[in-house]
Amino acid sequence: MNIIEQVINQFAKLPGLGKKSASRIVYYLLKSPASKTEDLAYSLLTLKKDLKNCSNCGNYSEIDPCPICQNQGRDRGTICVVEDAKDIHTIEATRIHQGLYHVLNGVISPLSGVGPNNLRIKELLERIKNTMTKEVIIATNPTVEGDTTALYLANVLKNTGVTVTRLALGLPVGGDLEYADKLTLSQALKGRIKLE
Amino acid sequence: MNIIEQVINQFAKLPGLGKKSASRIVYYLLKSPASKTEDLAYSLLTLKKDLKNCSNCGNYSEIDPCPICQNQGRDRGTICVVEDAKDIHTIEATRIHQGLYHVLNGVISPLSGVGPNNLRIKELLERIKNTMTKEVIIATNPTVEGDTTALYLANVLKNTGVTVTRLALGLPVGGDLEYADKLTLSQALKGRIKLE
Repeated sequence: MNIIEQVINQFAKLPGLGKKSASRIVYYLLKSPASKTEDLAYSLLTLKKDLKNCSNCGNYSEIDPCPICQNQGRDRGTICVVEDAKDIHTIEATRIHQGLYHVLNGVISPLSGVGPNNLRIKELLERIKNTMTKEVIIATNPTVEGDTTALYLANVLKNTGVTVTRLALGLPVGGDLEYADKLTLSQALKGRIKLE
Repeated sequence: MNIIEQVINQFAKLPGLGKKSASRIVYYLLKSPASKTEDLAYSLLTLKKDLKNCSNCGNYSEIDPCPICQNQGRDRGTICVVEDAKDIHTIEATRIHQGLYHVLNGVISPLSGVGPNNLRIKELLERIKNTMTKEVIIATNPTVEGDTTALYLANVLKNTGVTVTRLALGLPVGGDLEYADKLTLSQALKGRIKLE
């Protein structure tokens, strides 16, 4: 196997890429100036060398605690609980949530052998005990596992005195009733909001 | 901008990738063992360092002439002319063409300012003169530019004594008449083959 095929195979293993798209990328890099490929290569090396997990929230960061945990301008009374560090990126892009985060590193999934003890739930309880947390927003995915995890967390947090909330379910903005699935539409009906 | 955003932006510039797919890849790499990312990084560095263009056919290769040009087991009387080095990969995957290749490095496209002199046509004529080439298969894309280039090549090669052929146009295998566009169907009709 030559070097081109080797790099194509490596790219093809990345999520969302197959043989065709990987080979398109590799031939694109071959045509581009060497600096482009080298920059990418060195960035990849830095990526794994410089990034650690924040010991507080679990986010990826070059410093510990991470910039979000260190930022005194943020609402330190609200913690948004996410499955995965990449969800922080997605939620930050909305600029709505001004509080802190907590990464669970997964969801409860008995089929995959993931129980509550495999998640960063103990660390979350520890944080709530040691800080003046008022609200925990559970932002797990609206899947069976995400819902199970949300219910489990709500139960565990019941006696801590914090308000526990969950992201609203409903129609996506710009969506069409006609194409909404029954479950989403049911949730949109149940969660209907009074217009004032 | 932190390192994660930087790498996401670099990935997002690759063909076929956007911000979302790039961020998926980067977070995937962050979760994978460091060796995976490092292997990819080092492969990328090798890619640009070790690969040159074959001085004979123009293919990417670690050695010059490339393994295909050096291979005495191949049919040295047939040259398949392609627009781009990546087309060699695609044609080789069919295992039908047993001959050699010649990369034009583009197609005639007056709108983009590419004329015959910008392509490796002189090198092709040189090869035909110095070797016992019997057939030239023109495998440019079935586009306006590809067709123009094919006609130009056919004209240039007219007096060299070699047979000039072009890839057949017609219905894609597994395709459906109903969904075939008019131009493809016309070509399939014109190029109909007698069954015996």
